[in-house]
Amino acid sequence: MKLLDSINFPEDLRKLNNEELNILNNELRQYIIESVSKTGGHLASNLGVVELTVALHYSFNTPIDKIIWDVGHQSYIHKIITGRKEKMSTLRQYNGLSGFPKRSESCYDVFDTGHSSTSISAAMGIARARDLKKEKYEVVAVIGDGALTGGMAFEALNDLGRSNTKLIIVLNDNEMSISPNVGGMSHYLSVIRTSSRYLSTKKDIEKLLNDMPVVGKTIKSFLKRTKDGIKKMFIPGMLFEELGLTYMGPIDGHNTEELLESFKAAKNIDGPLIMHVITKKGKGYKYAETRPDEYHGVSPFNVVTGEGLKKSEVPTYSKVFGRKLCEIAGENKNVVAITAAMTDGTGLKEFSKIYPDRIFDAGIAEQHAVTMAAGLAVNGMVPVVAVYSSFLQRAYDQVIHDVALQNLHVVFAVDRAGLVGDDGETHHGVFDEGFLSQIPNMTIMAPADYTEFENMLTYAINEYDGPVAVRYPRGNSSSIINNSNSPVEKGKGAIVKEGSEITIVCSGKMVETAIKVSEILEKQNIDAEVINLRFIKPLDENLLNTSVSKTKKAVIIEESSLYGVASLIKTIIPDDVDVLLKTLPDEFIKHGSVEELLKANGLDEKSIAEDIINNKWRMQ
Amino acid sequence: MKLLDSINFPEDLRKLNNEELNILNNELRQYIIESVSKTGGHLASNLGVVELTVALHYSFNTPIDKIIWDVGHQSYIHKIITGRKEKMSTLRQYNGLSGFPKRSESCYDVFDTGHSSTSISAAMGIARARDLKKEKYEVVAVIGDGALTGGMAFEALNDLGRSNTKLIIVLNDNEMSISPNVGGMSHYLSVIRTSSRYLSTKKDIEKLLNDMPVVGKTIKSFLKRTKDGIKKMFIPGMLFEELGLTYMGPIDGHNTEELLESFKAAKNIDGPLIMHVITKKGKGYKYAETRPDEYHGVSPFNVVTGEGLKKSEVPTYSKVFGRKLCEIAGENKNVVAITAAMTDGTGLKEFSKIYPDRIFDAGIAEQHAVTMAAGLAVNGMVPVVAVYSSFLQRAYDQVIHDVALQNLHVVFAVDRAGLVGDDGETHHGVFDEGFLSQIPNMTIMAPADYTEFENMLTYAINEYDGPVAVRYPRGNSSSIINNSNSPVEKGKGAIVKEGSEITIVCSGKMVETAIKVSEILEKQNIDAEVINLRFIKPLDENLLNTSVSKTKKAVIIEESSLYGVASLIKTIIPDDVDVLLKTLPDEFIKHGSVEELLKANGLDEKSIAEDIINNKWRMQ
Repeated sequence: MKLLDSINFPEDLRKLNNEELNILNNELRQYIIESVSKTGGHLASNLGVVELTVALHYSFNTPIDKIIWDVGHQSYIHKIITGRKEKMSTLRQYNGLSGFPKRSESCYDVFDTGHSSTSISAAMGIARARDLKKEKYEVVAVIGDGALTGGMAFEALNDLGRSNTKLIIVLNDNEMSISPNVGGMSHYLSVIRTSSRYLSTKKDIEKLLNDMPVVGKTIKSFLKRTKDGIKKMFIPGMLFEELGLTYMGPIDGHNTEELLESFKAAKNIDGPLIMHVITKKGKGYKYAETRPDEYHGVSPFNVVTGEGLKKSEVPTYSKVFGRKLCEIAGENKNVVAITAAMTDGTGLKEFSKIYPDRIFDAGIAEQHAVTMAAGLAVNGMVPVVAVYSSFLQRAYDQVIHDVALQNLHVVFAVDRAGLVGDDGETHHGVFDEGFLSQIPNMTIMAPADYTEFENMLTYAINEYDGPVAVRYPRGNSSSIINNSNSPVEKGKGAIVKEGSEITIVCSGKMVETAIKVSEILEKQNIDAEVINLRFIKPLDENLLNTSVSKTKKAVIIEESSLYGVASLIKTIIPDDVDVLLKTLPDEFIKHGSVEELLKANGLDEKSIAEDIINNKWRMQ
Repeated sequence: MKLLDSINFPEDLRKLNNEELNILNNELRQYIIESVSKTGGHLASNLGVVELTVALHYSFNTPIDKIIWDVGHQSYIHKIITGRKEKMSTLRQYNGLSGFPKRSESCYDVFDTGHSSTSISAAMGIARARDLKKEKYEVVAVIGDGALTGGMAFEALNDLGRSNTKLIIVLNDNEMSISPNVGGMSHYLSVIRTSSRYLSTKKDIEKLLNDMPVVGKTIKSFLKRTKDGIKKMFIPGMLFEELGLTYMGPIDGHNTEELLESFKAAKNIDGPLIMHVITKKGKGYKYAETRPDEYHGVSPFNVVTGEGLKKSEVPTYSKVFGRKLCEIAGENKNVVAITAAMTDGTGLKEFSKIYPDRIFDAGIAEQHAVTMAAGLAVNGMVPVVAVYSSFLQRAYDQVIHDVALQNLHVVFAVDRAGLVGDDGETHHGVFDEGFLSQIPNMTIMAPADYTEFENMLTYAINEYDGPVAVRYPRGNSSSIINNSNSPVEKGKGAIVKEGSEITIVCSGKMVETAIKVSEILEKQNIDAEVINLRFIKPLDENLLNTSVSKTKKAVIIEESSLYGVASLIKTIIPDDVDVLLKTLPDEFIKHGSVEELLKANGLDEKSIAEDIINNKWRMQ
């Protein structure tokens, strides 16, 4: 790593010649493979943008010029060459580097991200502020073709196209989001990619139009009228040109020379420009090239064999969901699945193989996904929308306006509910309890173990009628909770452990924690009753009141803030009961392992038990 | 109204000939002008779709064939000819017809709406369900060009373009949302509209290509290669064709014959199709044609003069906002305004005239609007996003992910907060308290009168630093609240009226109600203290506790459900205090006047006072 050793900031690489840049790119590629093989993280997307990232920082005068990354999981190379090389070993770890751009980490990180399709909007704001302040520098948004299927990217393109804002959009086209892309835009881009003939034809035509002998007045006037049109047609990217952007490309995203030339040219073009760069996800690491979806996000792995070092035999909640849904769909022909570019992540891969006609991948398009589900429900299907909690935020209005208002039977399988760990702030599913529970007609469940989860899915799909969400955590669970196999009834919780002195109220994976708390308390001769709410909405007021009328003490454990439903639970408990609220603080929770984060926020069994033993009633 | 008298359902009009249809259209136009002049409602958009609506119901076998309206405020003609003519006098009134499609009203209303850009997604769900069930009928989505600027419409087009789903999109292009449209798509459509030469040229070219003598081998092979391309180029709508949809148009939306022919042709085309229909907002009523934005939504008016019958002299909250923002922007050069196609509605018209460079209209694109605001804030501006509460639901993820997470100084001017009245369920701003308050870093204020409102705006823009929302109701206020001019301090409420026996806790326009309640109580010799929270977040715990420690009784009045912040307020009040929660029920509130709705839900001064007098503590 001779060359990389001397590169710490963009100014270092700007001293290199093209040959050296190519050497550096190879070293960076090796470095990132080694580094991610130890920490885990996003690999394939970063391998795809090595040349692009280096060329960007070489060509643009960062940090004066601003580069805004879309999603941001492809920013590792960027981090390495902007002063954070040494910290890569702390990536996505508690108190370590974030896996996404963070303004708090570096002045080279211009805008925080994590979710998709935001970069053009953010860049427009930054560029418009620049123009208002009469400052001079370039603003560049780097967005993947997958992110371009998100509606807000189109909203931004639409606005940008008719502005005169100088802004360079680098469309990093790797034909993938996490899985291969879907939709008309993706097809359109692939037509451009595969039609090299366009470019040669364009030259042919221009020559022809200029040289062609005039065979008659009609043809001459026809030619004059159509000349511009014909020229335009043979320039790929006309769709973008129609919206008002200058299109440049396609450009080989692994050819540094071509990239540098293109960026040079782009600087000289006024107004908004879209530069179409073709890259390959996983480039340069054979395992990632051939299985880019599996190498999108990885656990630590063996560089030589490509095999994951940690292999869990326990199925995850996502897998249990996928398996159960296949089973239910086998019997209930009306069941259809909907995903927003997350077939794999949500566990729907098997379903998509068995029932290819009954799964709809909307693209990175949660809004469309939810409203399409409403349409399916109106016409007699039972749509199951599998979506991560933090991405469901994108479809909040659609859940209210298109599903709940019509009281439609749409099932939301809300994956990654609660803290998700190393992806951090942007990905924690800590708001859905709050934002879903205030929607009229909505029913919300949270399973404490796999048995309960499967029963809840069956209930939600086959027995319930109306908008219903089942929220479940990231990862796996080996817990088997008492009473989890008792029938699911709307608004009914279950007693997991009987006790007489304290009522512990909780749901989902916190039930396991509550049981551990009760075991600690038992050693102190405190006899706790543990109530598994099962239903976040409606709450089982009877069960709660029966229990607390006996114990006169309630501990409410919730993996969301007080602004979620914890305060509502408190509200329905009689005033003569002492209450201890154990919730997350009202702040964004950073990245780290879930265990570390729970502990840091007092939601591990030890902290909770201590607060109970120390009689901290009514304290947060 | 000879002909219209005999038309009650689509089957009636299917018996008419073209001449009779034209007569009917004129009668419908007169009917709708007369009708809306009495009830108020959406006028211009409905006048624009008279021929289109009649042609749709004539051509398609409704209700077997399904018509899905986007937004839905243009569905009055549809309502009249689907059995609801007699009920038009009850439009938008309590217990009367809704101003939007409602499945509960009629089997001809296929999907409920109110917000923009949902129709293609809903129609896709309906069409996909049809195909899975192997049923045969047409599904038609009618969407305006304005709604096409909303990202979710693009998400749907993108998905639809690569599907083989038979679906007809009628693009009702009137060059307007409420105000004239913005953006690249709008410009693109206007190019098609104004280029009638396209169509004649297309014929020219085809003839030319077929007839042209071969002047050489090169040219022949060139022509062969490019023939398809040239044909395609001269068909307008190539942008849609590139996404995979068949484009048909432009079609004169006021020419019944042309519409009927086009629908006939459309039925025979497989796969997704977009039919571009040009209409004129306000068509046939001179005042509405010349001022379509003013005649978008109207109060009752005089048909002859076009003048509104009720003219209020009192400025609305929106106007006060606009005026104050102009004043602040005069001094603070960093202030910029952002709207999502609502320059007029949010009171920004004056601002847009004085500071045309400092206002950005994002289109009907709340997601883009909010993230662009975040970009502006990152680069030193103070963006003020003026948006209706119910539309802010569209940008929930952006508020969390792009604004709050980076703790950016973006000011949300949340208009139409609380019940909005006759627009009903889809438009009530009853969720923002709940969904905003659970976001970390967020501060939320609600003014009780105009003075307090102006002070809060100044505070939010000039003094505060971070994400901050000021929520205020629709319409006007003549109230002047005690103490409203005292300085705004973060998290500090104000005592509006001192008292010793009961504490009434409230915010925003409910402060006026609370005062009236206290006056009723006074007559019963009950001495109430009224606390104006001012800050929904953070709450003034000190003020609350000081008051209730004296009164030992608290009444919390909130114009949102218990799932909003009412339960949180209850949570911070000591257990030895009797609490009465007066909130909206956990259900969607229908349309009607705000007064009627408050009364029906026990939130008028009389109902509240009665509950207090009757000692209904702890009851909802």
